[in-house]
Formats: sequence, C-alpha cells, structure tokens
Amino acid sequence: MAKSRAQQYSIGVDFGTNSVRALVVDVADGSELASHVYAYPSGEQGILLAPADPNLARQNPADYIEGFVQSIRGAVKAAKKLPGFAPDRVVGIGIDATGSTPLPIDREGRPLAMHPQFASDLAAHAWLWKDHTSHAEAAEITDRARRSGTGYLAKCGGTYSSEWFWSKILHCKRTSPKAFRAAFAWVEQSDFVPAFVTGNNRPESMPRCICAAGHKAMYHEAWGGLPSEALLASIDPDLVAIRRRFAAPALPADRKAGGLVPELAKKVGLPAGTPVAVGTIDAHAGAVGAGIKPGTLVKIIGTSTCDMMVVPMDQELADVPGLCGIVPGSIVPGMYGLEAGQSAVGDIFNWFVGRLTPAQYTSQGDPHANLTRAAEQLRPGESGLLALDWNNGNRTVLVDPLLSGLLVGQTLHTTAPEIYRALIEATAFGALTIIRRLEEYGIAVKDVVNCGGIAEKNPFVMQIYADVCNRPMKISRSAQTCALGSAIFGAVVGGAYKSTEQAQRRMTGTRDTVYRPRKAAAEVYARLYELYRRLHDAFGVIGSEQSVYRVMKELIAIRNQMRK
Amino acid sequence: MAKSRAQQYSIGVDFGTNSVRALVVDVADGSELASHVYAYPSGEQGILLAPADPNLARQNPADYIEGFVQSIRGAVKAAKKLPGFAPDRVVGIGIDATGSTPLPIDREGRPLAMHPQFASDLAAHAWLWKDHTSHAEAAEITDRARRSGTGYLAKCGGTYSSEWFWSKILHCKRTSPKAFRAAFAWVEQSDFVPAFVTGNNRPESMPRCICAAGHKAMYHEAWGGLPSEALLASIDPDLVAIRRRFAAPALPADRKAGGLVPELAKKVGLPAGTPVAVGTIDAHAGAVGAGIKPGTLVKIIGTSTCDMMVVPMDQELADVPGLCGIVPGSIVPGMYGLEAGQSAVGDIFNWFVGRLTPAQYTSQGDPHANLTRAAEQLRPGESGLLALDWNNGNRTVLVDPLLSGLLVGQTLHTTAPEIYRALIEATAFGALTIIRRLEEYGIAVKDVVNCGGIAEKNPFVMQIYADVCNRPMKISRSAQTCALGSAIFGAVVGGAYKSTEQAQRRMTGTRDTVYRPRKAAAEVYARLYELYRRLHDAFGVIGSEQSVYRVMKELIAIRNQMRK
Repeated sequence: MAKSRAQQYSIGVDFGTNSVRALVVDVADGSELASHVYAYPSGEQGILLAPADPNLARQNPADYIEGFVQSIRGAVKAAKKLPGFAPDRVVGIGIDATGSTPLPIDREGRPLAMHPQFASDLAAHAWLWKDHTSHAEAAEITDRARRSGTGYLAKCGGTYSSEWFWSKILHCKRTSPKAFRAAFAWVEQSDFVPAFVTGNNRPESMPRCICAAGHKAMYHEAWGGLPSEALLASIDPDLVAIRRRFAAPALPADRKAGGLVPELAKKVGLPAGTPVAVGTIDAHAGAVGAGIKPGTLVKIIGTSTCDMMVVPMDQELADVPGLCGIVPGSIVPGMYGLEAGQSAVGDIFNWFVGRLTPAQYTSQGDPHANLTRAAEQLRPGESGLLALDWNNGNRTVLVDPLLSGLLVGQTLHTTAPEIYRALIEATAFGALTIIRRLEEYGIAVKDVVNCGGIAEKNPFVMQIYADVCNRPMKISRSAQTCALGSAIFGAVVGGAYKSTEQAQRRMTGTRDTVYRPRKAAAEVYARLYELYRRLHDAFGVIGSEQSVYRVMKELIAIRNQMRK
Repeated sequence: MAKSRAQQYSIGVDFGTNSVRALVVDVADGSELASHVYAYPSGEQGILLAPADPNLARQNPADYIEGFVQSIRGAVKAAKKLPGFAPDRVVGIGIDATGSTPLPIDREGRPLAMHPQFASDLAAHAWLWKDHTSHAEAAEITDRARRSGTGYLAKCGGTYSSEWFWSKILHCKRTSPKAFRAAFAWVEQSDFVPAFVTGNNRPESMPRCICAAGHKAMYHEAWGGLPSEALLASIDPDLVAIRRRFAAPALPADRKAGGLVPELAKKVGLPAGTPVAVGTIDAHAGAVGAGIKPGTLVKIIGTSTCDMMVVPMDQELADVPGLCGIVPGSIVPGMYGLEAGQSAVGDIFNWFVGRLTPAQYTSQGDPHANLTRAAEQLRPGESGLLALDWNNGNRTVLVDPLLSGLLVGQTLHTTAPEIYRALIEATAFGALTIIRRLEEYGIAVKDVVNCGGIAEKNPFVMQIYADVCNRPMKISRSAQTCALGSAIFGAVVGGAYKSTEQAQRRMTGTRDTVYRPRKAAAEVYARLYELYRRLHDAFGVIGSEQSVYRVMKELIAIRNQMRK
C-alpha cells in the first residue's frame, strides 16, 4: 500500500432502484464510517410509471446527478465529524448502478430527458432494469441471433432478455420514434454517472463498463466487442449507429474513468480530480463487497436475487445454458464473472402480504413477522403445498419472462401462513436450481455467502434456504455490500491496493452466524424439490415430456406422512 | 286425483348437513305454505369433528329423530295459522337425507350411538357424506371390484368413492373394531329416518331406498342387488353379514315406507298412520323439486354441486365413465337416474374469503359481495389466471379425492378479486366438463335448471356459468327444492297423483330470470377452457400425455389481448 492505511478512505456510491447511497469506508479493513441515502424525488419512489402498462418502469436521469451530489455530500459531512477523517484522505470513488438501465443521450452526453421538449416523454428517460415493455423485441433479437449462428447468445444463457439494452432501444424505436431519432447514443446508467461526474462524457469516447456491456449488450472480446453490424442491421439498420457510438473496449471497474470535475467536487466537499472508477453493475459491486472469490457463490437477496460467481481465467469454462452472463472481468477484474438470478423473491412475499393476507395477520404489527411466526410452526411438507417462484417470470435457468406464478396443493383448509411458507420454499427451490445448473457445468459451489435485505433480516428464510439447498448459508459481514464493493474499486483506482482481490481480502468478511441444514428437513425438501422440478420442466421447458400427474398425489402423500 | 286439490297438502322433510327443514306444500300447484328449520344441536353446526383428522365428519343420529319431530311440528304449527290448512288434509310425508351417510344400528334398528357405552365413540355415529377418512378402503374396494371382472363399478363411474357405504363400513372395521362388532347392520340416513318414524325398522326388513343403495352401495338389479357375497368376502369376510341384513329389493321413493307411528304423530301434530314415502337422497329430491325430466340437467349448487339427469328406461344408455351413478328409479321412479357432481364449489369461495382475503374486502359488509363488485369489473381472461376447482378433490369426471387445488398465472400485481373470479370460473369449467361428458355419451343436455344457495343468490356466478357453458342457465322456482321434491313424493304416496311426473308437472317450475350466454365472453372462455382441460388431464388423468407447456404462454397472450 502506498500510504498509511489508517488515514485512507474510499467512497462507494450505490445507485439502487429507489435511492442512492454513498458510503465512506476505511480502506485498511473495510470498516464503514458514514453513509448517506438520497431518495429519488421523481415518480413513485423514484420510478416513473404508466397506469396503462404495468410493464413500464422508467427513471429521471436528473435524479442520478442530484443523487450523486446529495449522497456524497451527506456521507462526507457525517464522516467529517469522526476523528481521523478528512476529505483529502479519500483516495477514490467507485460507482455502481442498476442494469440494464439504458438511457438516450445527445451528442454532448446529456440525457435526452433533460431537454425541455422531452421532459415529459417517458421514452426519453432511463429505462429501468425492471421495465418489461420490450419482450417482443427480446424474442426477435433472440431469434435473429440464434439464426445467425454467431454464438452471441452463448454467453448470456441462450436467450436475450426483455430487460436488456438492445431490446429496450429497439422497443423505443418501434413505439417512440421521435425520442429514438433525437437520441445520438444510448448509455447504461453505470456508464452515464462516472462519465458525467468526470466530464469524460462524449458518447464516442466515454468509458463503457464491461459489466453492463458484457452482461446486457452481448459485448464479448471473442467477437470483437458488441455484436457485428451485420447482425444488428438484420434486426434493425438503425441499431448500427448505436454500435458505432459505443467506445470499445469496455473496461473493468478497477480502471479509472477520470477525476471528479471541479464543479461537482465543490458541491460534494471533496478535492477536484479525486479518482473515479469505471462503473459497475450494483450486484457485481455487491459480490465484491461480499468477498466473492472462486468457489464462493454470492447471492444478493432482496426484491429479486442476483447470484454470482467468479472463475479464474485459466480454468476451462463451458457456456452454461440459462446463465444471464459469463463475462471476462465483469465482477472481479481478471476473472470470468458469472451472473444468474431470480426475477422475484422479496417481491413475491410482499405481493402476498399486500394482496392476499387477511386482517388477522395485517391488523397489528409487521405482517411478514406475523406470517413468519405462524409459518415457523409448520414442518416441511405438511401443508401439502408447492409453488413456482415465477410471478415475475424466470431469469435463471429459463430466461423467460412469459412465465407466471403457480400454486398447487390447496385444500379447503389451506391457510395464509402455509402459502407464505410455500412461496418462500419456492424461491429456495429456484435458488437450488441455479446452484445445480452451475455444478452440472463444472463450476463447484463450495461456499454460499448471502447479502441483501432478506439475508440480513430474515433468519426464517435463510434457514429454509439452508435446508432446501442442503448447504450452510453464510451472511456477508457488511449490510451495504454494493456500496462497499464500489468503495473497494475506489480504493483500487486510488492506489490503496494493487488489485481487487487484495483489497477484498482486507475489506470484506462474513458473520459468525451461519445457517446450517437440518437433516430431517433436508430430506423432505429433497422430495419436494423433485416435484418442483417436474412443474418447472413441464411449464418452463419447451418440448419437455415431464409428466405432472404424480405431483398432486405425492404432495398429499408427503403431507399425510408429515402430519402423522 | 282422488280428492279436491285445494284441500290437500303434503310435507317434505329435508335432512341437510347442518339442519333439517320441513315444508308444507299445497299439492295442487306446489305453492309453499309454511316451513320450519331445526339446527342439529350436536357438534359444530351439527357435525362431530376430530381435531387431529380433518377428513373426519360424523353426526349424532339422535339429532335426526329430534329434528324430524321439531321441524314438522314447527311447520304444521305455522301452517295451521293459514286458511284452508288442517293436519288431516296432509296426504303424505316424503323424506330426503344426505348420502352416503351410513350409521351402525343394533338388532332392533336403534342407532348404536344411542347406546350409552357408544355415546362418545365417533365410529358408532353416522358417517356424514363428506367424511373422507376411508380413501384407502375405497381404493382397495375399487381394485377388488375391478379385478373381479364383475362390472359392479360400471354404474358408479369406474371408481368406488371414499364417501360411500362400503368404504366407510370397512374403515370402521379396520380402525374401530369394537363399534364394528357391536353393530348388527348398517343403514343409510335416508333409510333410517323413514324406517324409524314408521316403526318399520327391523334391519332385515326395513325398506331400503334405491337412491342410496344404487348410487352408494353398488346395488343394481342387473346383478341381483348388492355386490355378490364372493366379492364382498374377498374384500373382507365380515362384509357378508352386512349384505345379508340388507332387505332387497331396494325401493323407489314413490313407494310407501309405512304409516307414521302414533307416538311421533302426536308429537308432530299429524294423524297417526299418515303415509310416509320411502326415503331419497337430498339431491335427488332436489332434482324432482326442480322439475327434472329427460333432457333437463338439474344442478344443485351450494358448498358442492350435484348434477343430475334422468333418461327414459327405453333409451339406449351407455355406462358413462366418471359418473357417480346410473341407477334405475333413483331420481324419478321409472327412469334411469344419473348423478354427477363437483366436490366443492361454494366451499372454495368460502375458503378464499375466510383464509386469503385482505381486510380491504372483509372489514365492512359481506366479503363475497365486496369481492364480487370488484370481480365484475374484470373482463374474462384479463387477469391471466386459471384455476382448478379441486380443493376438495374431483368427483366427476375423475372420481379422485387425491387431487388438490391449483392456481396458475399469478404476477406481482394479481389481486384478490382476480383470484376470486378465477375460482368461480374454475367451478364453471368443472360444470362444463360434466356437461361435455354427458353429451359425449349420447345424453343430450337441452336445458339446465339450477337450484341451491348459489343459484338463488348469486347472479354473478350464474352469468359466468352461462358464459362458460355457452348455454342459458335457468333457476328453479322453488328456493327449497329438496323439501319440495320430498313433498312431491309425499303427495304421490298419499294418492294425490298417480306418478311423480304427473305431480312434477303441477308442482314445479322455473323463474322468469334466465342467464343467457354473452358471445364475446363465451369466445374467451372457450379458449380458457381448452387450457383448463390441459391442466385437468395432465394432473388428473393417469397416463395422459397432455403437455402443459403452452398454458402460461397462452394465459399471458389472452391477458394481453383482453387488456388492450
């Protein structure tokens, strides 16, 4: 390390779905000095919605800029009250954001939404990761890419998602041609913020992060960057210009995007020129902050999940069907980054509580806690219920948004806590399906480290995950792993460490509490998982000849056994 | 007719699940003078339950005797206040009861439960129709009967039910041998009451009704009554004695069981010797009261449904797979009676309201009305949901209690009224499945007359039934069709009419309100029904190669179309 660690700090800025958080970290050991959260003021909790289309979710890019300023300013102000901290001891800033969240920009790199004539055009705003308006375009891109025989889909699970870059841009062209024509280029949120705050924001030259490019835009060095002009032209000729205005090569997050511009430096209370790292996707930063390394699966469990692994570059690595992405350098620079995920987890529990939970559990106290108290009393299998966790489609391993929730096993006595538990179990079965897929393709999962709101706060869910997956579930020490991961990149670009791995070894860890599988529960869940897979394959895999006839019978048999 | 109609009355006594109703009817036109309901005092709403076993449902036979007395006394007392009525103008009494509800009796025909030493033995009480403790025995009987090659199952849909006579008796022997050994014979509730109130209650000679015998005990004249001693002995040798103490032939309900015994006549306020008809099963009486005739399907829709038709004896009639019974003389004497049914309808709606409906719909007013108001606003298909109506198993056409509920199509936005509507639609699809099965086997359904609580009170449900079945839905004029049907039999045994059909023509009818199918809705439901059948066959028919892969996709496609 270049300077004395005790006097060095870095800042991680984590752009989430509803707010942005800045975290000031001691680079010596990752201890967290101060943080500040800024809630996006636009729309509903920061999301611009359209009543007529539940698939639409946009954001106002002005919130990102203001969020950058306010969150850092607040965190720095709080840190300054502590001994040892001084703004000039901040060695660097790392930034992560949601993705794929592309936004159209003009020739100067300014968001189209900030032009007065587009202020109220939702197509000119940022297309939030969970915007699902573009599923027709995703199917079309998948089809074209498949038929081209180029292998572009091999690194993103074989299916291009409606949540991703090209789908959204194409949908914009089809449905909002005015905004499309006015856009000079499109950038990911995780590229936009570092570019904007360093002034390095000319569309053709701004640094593009490998995380978003590789996982969301079919960027891969094996084929020279983004998909070929020929393929893009075959989908829509107008996509070719988007490709030409995208500076290659895409960069990992241990590279510097630039120095903080004086105007913003002054606003946030840091020296001008403070190094800012290339951006990264929030989940990838979280994996870094949770201590991801070869053999360790990091699961970020919140409204949805992101499941990540890294594999050394010298290891033989097959293309894994259904994985959202396998991208060199995308999580930890210098390794393959693998990303999988479940489209909804906490969102499913929240849906059930908000829509289907009777007054008995909602009238007093936290409904989740009330349902949990009752659901904890049940033995695995005794409700006779089984659910699929597809209320928001299935990301891994099916990569299919055109799926839906399913619940089977209801009697005339089925209760809300029984269903609540079945929904939790369904998400655990979904988690196990991802682990199995990784291992089937030679990627051993030796360790699981969980982070995110549910991992933090819900021992009941985590115990079920341990029982269902029949593995110990560890919890990340930091409760702000994304911001911590970005701070690690800030530390690296600031010169405090030579590599991300070196910084991780000092700045991350897990808690003492480990959820360990219970044998009796694991045995029942193994039987239930077999039934889950029958449903999963029958409803989710085209051409599957999986019979579901036994499912109801077996659920009843297991129920009767467990009630004895 | 023998006497002046204006001065003749009959009484129908309807033993339901929770109470017994007596109805005084003018035999001239079926107009209803007075009625009285007596709620069974034992157990929970008349049902004896065991907390450890949700399948168990028993009744106290003493409630039947007291219920007979109190209900008739109350009805006669009310009728006496009206001009023209006098007790000696009551020409006869008809009685219907639930079934299969067998109870063990002693040598003198007294219920075993009325012996002090068995007063607290649930096995010595009446085994209510919805007692499902005996599914293992039902499977065993089905297996034996099938392998015997005797054809006994051909008239009851190919599968013997856990709800029926022999299953329950066998389960009693296996699990409560003391009660089994103490029983001299077993009778159905619909046999017990007429026998007891006429004193014609010696087990070996008491009149047995063809309804219960034919539909629940595999009685058929084609094989000389009950199944052979050889078959019964192969199941369990002790069943042979039960057969020997069962007086054949079983009789239709237009035959007299005897005259009211003086002691009871005095208690109820009628002349001793008033003719009492042979019993009938409640649903069959309801069909008669609703005006069943060839070509008319009568549906009794309440917590569950019973779907009935009659076919003239001279018509060629195939065995219909999955029908609960095809029995000569069981509904209208002189015709084949056909019985089908759904194991749960209103029970499913009540379950949803009781267990899964949030405070928004339950805190004020009737939750069913509140959910209906919201569900009415939806277009068919726009929720994207589809359910199976199997929360209590499937009676027709699968005859399988080891099935369960299923709901598919949930998103993160799915609401309680959407699910409520999907559950109603599921029961309508189940209703259509029965109609289709009848027609596939050459039994044309020209007309559908509905009765029961839901038909009476729920226009929303009935309109969905009309749209799903794509046929007009008529409603029976009487709101007490079971008691009216029994009163019709009372009129016939009392000599007011020569035949049941003649009495029905005068005493029954339908209302002016008819629910007619709406073309646009019927078209969407035809598409949804195709998906329902995919689920139905995949989960319910062994060996079915029905693929369910398309179900979620099509539901989403229909949803998107309907939302446009």
